[in-house]
Amino acid sequence: MKVAVIMGSDSDLPVVEKGLKVFRKFGVDFDARVISAHRTPFEALEFAKNAENEYDLIIGAAGKAAHLPGVLAGVSTLPVIGLPIKSSTMDGLDSLLSIVQMPSGVPVATVAINGAENAALLAVQMLSIKYDELKVKFKEYKAEMAEAVKQKDVNIQSQI
Amino acid sequence: MKVAVIMGSDSDLPVVEKGLKVFRKFGVDFDARVISAHRTPFEALEFAKNAENEYDLIIGAAGKAAHLPGVLAGVSTLPVIGLPIKSSTMDGLDSLLSIVQMPSGVPVATVAINGAENAALLAVQMLSIKYDELKVKFKEYKAEMAEAVKQKDVNIQSQI
Amino acid sequence: MKVAVIMGSDSDLPVVEKGLKVFRKFGVDFDARVISAHRTPFEALEFAKNAENEYDLIIGAAGKAAHLPGVLAGVSTLPVIGLPIKSSTMDGLDSLLSIVQMPSGVPVATVAINGAENAALLAVQMLSIKYDELKVKFKEYKAEMAEAVKQKDVNIQSQI
Amino acid sequence: MKVAVIMGSDSDLPVVEKGLKVFRKFGVDFDARVISAHRTPFEALEFAKNAENEYDLIIGAAGKAAHLPGVLAGVSTLPVIGLPIKSSTMDGLDSLLSIVQMPSGVPVATVAINGAENAALLAVQMLSIKYDELKVKFKEYKAEMAEAVKQKDVNIQSQI
Amino acid sequence: MKVAVIMGSDSDLPVVEKGLKVFRKFGVDFDARVISAHRTPFEALEFAKNAENEYDLIIGAAGKAAHLPGVLAGVSTLPVIGLPIKSSTMDGLDSLLSIVQMPSGVPVATVAINGAENAALLAVQMLSIKYDELKVKFKEYKAEMAEAVKQKDVNIQSQI
Amino acid sequence: MKVAVIMGSDSDLPVVEKGLKVFRKFGVDFDARVISAHRTPFEALEFAKNAENEYDLIIGAAGKAAHLPGVLAGVSTLPVIGLPIKSSTMDGLDSLLSIVQMPSGVPVATVAINGAENAALLAVQMLSIKYDELKVKFKEYKAEMAEAVKQKDVNIQSQI
Amino acid sequence: MKVAVIMGSDSDLPVVEKGLKVFRKFGVDFDARVISAHRTPFEALEFAKNAENEYDLIIGAAGKAAHLPGVLAGVSTLPVIGLPIKSSTMDGLDSLLSIVQMPSGVPVATVAINGAENAALLAVQMLSIKYDELKVKFKEYKAEMAEAVKQKDVNIQSQI
Amino acid sequence: MKVAVIMGSDSDLPVVEKGLKVFRKFGVDFDARVISAHRTPFEALEFAKNAENEYDLIIGAAGKAAHLPGVLAGVSTLPVIGLPIKSSTMDGLDSLLSIVQMPSGVPVATVAINGAENAALLAVQMLSIKYDELKVKFKEYKAEMAEAVKQKDVNIQSQI
Repeated sequence: MKVAVIMGSDSDLPVVEKGLKVFRKFGVDFDARVISAHRTPFEALEFAKNAENEYDLIIGAAGKAAHLPGVLAGVSTLPVIGLPIKSSTMDGLDSLLSIVQMPSGVPVATVAINGAENAALLAVQMLSIKYDELKVKFKEYKAEMAEAVKQKDVNIQSQI
Repeated sequence: MKVAVIMGSDSDLPVVEKGLKVFRKFGVDFDARVISAHRTPFEALEFAKNAENEYDLIIGAAGKAAHLPGVLAGVSTLPVIGLPIKSSTMDGLDSLLSIVQMPSGVPVATVAINGAENAALLAVQMLSIKYDELKVKFKEYKAEMAEAVKQKDVNIQSQI
Repeated sequence: MKVAVIMGSDSDLPVVEKGLKVFRKFGVDFDARVISAHRTPFEALEFAKNAENEYDLIIGAAGKAAHLPGVLAGVSTLPVIGLPIKSSTMDGLDSLLSIVQMPSGVPVATVAINGAENAALLAVQMLSIKYDELKVKFKEYKAEMAEAVKQKDVNIQSQI
Repeated sequence: MKVAVIMGSDSDLPVVEKGLKVFRKFGVDFDARVISAHRTPFEALEFAKNAENEYDLIIGAAGKAAHLPGVLAGVSTLPVIGLPIKSSTMDGLDSLLSIVQMPSGVPVATVAINGAENAALLAVQMLSIKYDELKVKFKEYKAEMAEAVKQKDVNIQSQI
Repeated sequence: MKVAVIMGSDSDLPVVEKGLKVFRKFGVDFDARVISAHRTPFEALEFAKNAENEYDLIIGAAGKAAHLPGVLAGVSTLPVIGLPIKSSTMDGLDSLLSIVQMPSGVPVATVAINGAENAALLAVQMLSIKYDELKVKFKEYKAEMAEAVKQKDVNIQSQI
Repeated sequence: MKVAVIMGSDSDLPVVEKGLKVFRKFGVDFDARVISAHRTPFEALEFAKNAENEYDLIIGAAGKAAHLPGVLAGVSTLPVIGLPIKSSTMDGLDSLLSIVQMPSGVPVATVAINGAENAALLAVQMLSIKYDELKVKFKEYKAEMAEAVKQKDVNIQSQI
Repeated sequence: MKVAVIMGSDSDLPVVEKGLKVFRKFGVDFDARVISAHRTPFEALEFAKNAENEYDLIIGAAGKAAHLPGVLAGVSTLPVIGLPIKSSTMDGLDSLLSIVQMPSGVPVATVAINGAENAALLAVQMLSIKYDELKVKFKEYKAEMAEAVKQKDVNIQSQI
Repeated sequence: MKVAVIMGSDSDLPVVEKGLKVFRKFGVDFDARVISAHRTPFEALEFAKNAENEYDLIIGAAGKAAHLPGVLAGVSTLPVIGLPIKSSTMDGLDSLLSIVQMPSGVPVATVAINGAENAALLAVQMLSIKYDELKVKFKEYKAEMAEAVKQKDVNIQSQI
């Protein structure tokens, strides 16, 4: 059980890092790499062609004209999760539309702009289809999250 | 192996139907239902709470303030695929943002506006993590799709 | 006479606080709580189901894919005021569309992005339908507001 | 118990009519009028100044630079519901922003673009704060709506 | 020859001030005032009704749901220049659309978001139709502006 | 007293025609011409350079990357009214932003997308600064417009 | 001297055809092909790798998440012209942003949405850098275009 | 072999400078100038008319209602590259649409918002059609860029 986390640029790492933390928490093995659909297109295709031998799924993070997830999804049969990165203009709308509006036949599972945690959690959920131990952990995660909200609810009521 | 396809309204069916065809082609068993996050909220929660006993994943299709996929994802631990439906105003941007911009902790795997085929194909890919026979079929599908494009390429070259 | 102010996250409090001040000024009793449509969906439904026993109306504040007000409106028969919170991307457009574009049958009374004061004032106006003392106070508020603008008008004319 | 439904133009009537039907169904008395914030501004102010003597709340429907609801809300102390009408350009976004983005102090309770039914239902909910018989009817309405969705759910399952 | 510069709020002054400088430079007499279409609607109408007795034209500056210029234009027969002010959300798009998308019959001469200098210059140009001395000054202004650009052109060529 | 109405393309005529009707109604003399900022740039500059000898003001109508009004305003000292034409994509937003967002120093008085009547009425208002007979006619126009709305108000009340 | 015109789908042909006409008029040899960045990624890379042996430049036409031009530009050193195709949702904004917002290092020369003629004319202009006969023809084209506008100007003046 | 880099304002220089660096690296001779389509329109036309005698192509950089590249393209037969500059409002969308949405007949080769490096690289690619030494250098540039990404890939793998 292993996930490939591919960034279009190393400047995406501060956002992506929040997803890697999720994988560490869930004990999901991953490789994090920088491969560019535009600057290293042959490496991108090579990676995507072989990905199914090593990985269960791929996360592709990219900004602006964010082609990386779509390009990987064009080659690989693995599910590809697309993580739109907000860049210095357009507030991430360019990244979001470039990733989510894929043509029929080649889906990319898109999450929120800069939503690195959700990209990783979605990966965990996909893997849970096969790996029951992850389903158990994800349930605990959901329960903890609910607990945290309830605690905040108590705090805010005592505060105000 | 079974997928739940939940529509917020039966007016979504003409779009969703293209995804159901994909499931029939791949031999994926599914239930198609109309459950509204707003009009039948108790049914929505009830469904989501029990979904993991019967299904491997959920597709939620909805338009406008499209809360259905997010609401199902809040309850169920199953992966939820969100299909934004274009309605009579805003060209589907409202549905897209309502589905994709989920807060941290509760991802929805969003596909293109009206991209029902891709919602179903993404489901097939997720299931392929566990079910090898689907992986084989998906490879064939990709090969057929490539073949069709190549044929169009030949046609267009002879035509022009 | 009591209002429920529900936030999707405690990070919404700095914005929401401006509305709570309005309630204190008008002497409207309120409870402020953190309940998430996605992270504590059962609590959200439970709250909404019982709300009419304790409250006259509900304010729901949420950002991004802001489902909270719509989900509460789906369950409760009370009027629900939706307050879109601006988050780190999309300048609040995602929150606004997620809240205002509700499907036929389940309205949410939406105010401006980050418009917490207006959410509270709208609540006061709704309550004024029943409670005449609030109508009196709201008239005074409008008169004070007009007076303040007139004073600014005088100041600016003397200044320039 | 009476509602004023003000349109900026009689071309808004085909949309607004769906809301009037809701009022007839709920037995809510209403006046429907054409008053323009721009073409008959004195009538608009005159109307708004006296509205509280005759009505419990106001619905303002307008398109493009849709100032009518905001102008009425500036004068009257009654709650004002804003109904953005989609015109021939901008897909209703201009109407929506012109209505919902009201400055602090003067809220307009905004519903979805062309959401005339919801404008009327929101009015019913506001009136229910005072009039218990409307609360009863609104509960029945919600129950019927849920029943209709459940019936569609049964139909679609038998169909597919 | 006199211009009325009306702001919806005194917080608009830092932007509007750039236009007042233009009037001082051109020797155009003006009054700068704070009148709100929403908070002091009667003052707004009163002002607009009498404006033609004292002024040649009106500039209306406002942000968010920026109704002020349109409301003044509804009452007065004077030309109204609309100056959209950028507020804390929506990057000024809400102000722009609220001002420029006026319905047929009631135009507002809209300039760029935060374009206070252009609002004043447009006023000067309108007044030039009648007052020849302003036409002469505006020509000088255009020539100076061209000269300044040519100087920058020289500078940049020597610099690089 | 004469107005120049310049279209970037003769395909703009069906929209512009509504403005020409206004001029005929008000007895304002005009020339209607097709001059393109991009296809006949020398003619555009030549026209703009001499315009003040023959005209009191200029209306420039253009779609897409709508540079015509701005280019004319760059050369002429006359006030330039910009009329954004909706083309087959982008719903007129491209035309609007290309016309309204002029840099400091060169204003264009922008009206609504496809708002040809308002472009002409704004011209009438500008001319009224000098020509009193137009002010009288514009007042009558406003009164007729108000009368028409009041008649519609009567009709709709008797209808419903 | 030869141009490659690559479409992502044969459904783009009706738009692209207008560009092919331009090439025929200018006597520019071209190949028109259907190659998909997503459905036939290996063919896309193979084509791009060898393109410089046969072509002087590439036009890539694509809709929605329009990755084709960027992917070709990532591999080939030839200039790539991107032609955004309007699809059934989002009015072409998704295509435009996916094509124009390329990251630093890999430019795509983007033209207007559905601007197939301009894509071809831009190709002619690029080729003119090397091929003087095209420069001559392009000048004639520009002159004809100006003549046509002048003729329309004459027509419209006689018509109105 | 020489390129003209024209800015609409010297405030564009900090962005444009990144493109000039690219030209220095590739040994492409250039002139950088400030010429405004609006403030020095005669200079703009004069420049564009003579440009083909001195330059192989033109880069036009401009913000807001960014007419400069289109105006230059209207006059000159040289290819014109348009560089949209992000200004203080609208996040560069106004500049982008003003530049890219050119009407049929007058293309502008548009690059990303603030994409000065890409404007220069696109110029290099266009010149490479004629000048083989640039093609060689551009290949090296692409190879270096790929190498840099691969190094980042190695770094990130060792880091995480």
